[in-house]
Amino acid sequence: MLERRSFLLAAGATSAALSLYAKPELTNVKALVFDTFGTVVDWRGSIIAEGKNWGKAKGLNLNWAEFADHWRLRYGPAMDKVRKGELPWTVLDDLHRMMLEDVLKELKLELTEAEKVSWTHVWRRLHPWPDAVAGLTRLKKRFIIAPLSNGNIALMTNLAKFGGLPWDVILGAELARRYKPDREVYVSAYQLLDLKPDQVMMCAAHSRDLQAARNYGLRTGFIHQPNEFGGGFAGKPDNAKPGDFDVVAENFLDLATQLGA
Amino acid sequence: MLERRSFLLAAGATSAALSLYAKPELTNVKALVFDTFGTVVDWRGSIIAEGKNWGKAKGLNLNWAEFADHWRLRYGPAMDKVRKGELPWTVLDDLHRMMLEDVLKELKLELTEAEKVSWTHVWRRLHPWPDAVAGLTRLKKRFIIAPLSNGNIALMTNLAKFGGLPWDVILGAELARRYKPDREVYVSAYQLLDLKPDQVMMCAAHSRDLQAARNYGLRTGFIHQPNEFGGGFAGKPDNAKPGDFDVVAENFLDLATQLGA
Repeated sequence: MLERRSFLLAAGATSAALSLYAKPELTNVKALVFDTFGTVVDWRGSIIAEGKNWGKAKGLNLNWAEFADHWRLRYGPAMDKVRKGELPWTVLDDLHRMMLEDVLKELKLELTEAEKVSWTHVWRRLHPWPDAVAGLTRLKKRFIIAPLSNGNIALMTNLAKFGGLPWDVILGAELARRYKPDREVYVSAYQLLDLKPDQVMMCAAHSRDLQAARNYGLRTGFIHQPNEFGGGFAGKPDNAKPGDFDVVAENFLDLATQLGA
Repeated sequence: MLERRSFLLAAGATSAALSLYAKPELTNVKALVFDTFGTVVDWRGSIIAEGKNWGKAKGLNLNWAEFADHWRLRYGPAMDKVRKGELPWTVLDDLHRMMLEDVLKELKLELTEAEKVSWTHVWRRLHPWPDAVAGLTRLKKRFIIAPLSNGNIALMTNLAKFGGLPWDVILGAELARRYKPDREVYVSAYQLLDLKPDQVMMCAAHSRDLQAARNYGLRTGFIHQPNEFGGGFAGKPDNAKPGDFDVVAENFLDLATQLGA
């Protein structure tokens, strides 16, 4: 069925499917590195679903969408504290815990230590978008595929186990001890793979991430994820039109098709 | 067929298969990290095979077993130079190139630059031992599996692509900027995975690697690889008997069976 979907998608996007050959500069690409939260996995939907189940068992009635959005809103500011040196290098698991404490205070919720640990690790239990694993599996046959996320190695490894993400290697912020969009993270990706910048394509649903990657010489692939923020207050989905990046894909299967995988 | 082989193996090794349950301390293990050269892949046989093919095409008659052994003999001393500070941190790909230059000098062989690059990367094209992928695939269902090798990330990533090694994440010397058996490499394995030392089992065909891992609190699994050195002069295979390490396995399938995977 998957093959049939891919075929229909390819058939419906012939010009896109041919675009790789119209872009000889992309034939050089050996590795695809992916933003993960929002691009590969649905953080908001997963947190809401887990919250609803947990709340039902606890007899706790909470607006879990607001809970997820409150938590996510603290993401940028927490990394900024590390960036500005207000915090020493701190992995994302630990930042998630700090942000959770703030959210709990704000919502006047009290949790046990075990519950706090479990909730901190909800970020290791996010579900992939429906076509992500199928698209990555196709792309893996032709390219090295790796996350290039702000998540630390333990978080990303457990997330991959949870969702069946077929990464070849886990790259990202912890290996550079800097957070995206800082230059060092993008540079670490091609250096650790012993590749040139233009042999690596950054793939993300976020324009800011791709613009940074482009500034440091990487190729760029935009993947539309219109449902990341679900109309909540934590952000608005980016949009891109053909030509804004080296590849602009409707979804993971379209990305695979456009890259000939 | 694989399932049948596993079953027969399990049936023939009932006491071994039960040993996990007789060792409650092992139920804690969440991740298995593997030495790679010699343990997972057959460096010597792969280099000989590639040499023979290449030599035939070049009309070059060489004793490729000696070539492989000469190269491998330089492995320990090259890492010692880094360990003693005679060389700054240097990834294994680059040490392989330096060792290759020495071997070529000794054998009075002249290669083009492209040939040197290709030969240096022969270490990215080593074939797994026959049961390694099947064993790892079983183990991956129950554990996080990762190489903990002296090979750098680019080398290990390409090696995994070449041989179909289904790693969850690539750990190893480059992330600690130290070579095994230095403490930092073993510590980096459990720290990067956010685990305790005894939640990680080092698996290797080499006693020295396992003894170091044990000294730093990791669990240990010995895998017999009697053919690693093929009777050549680069070394002799280690042997172990039950009780020498937490697990002593005949091969990868036996390791999977003993660990209940």
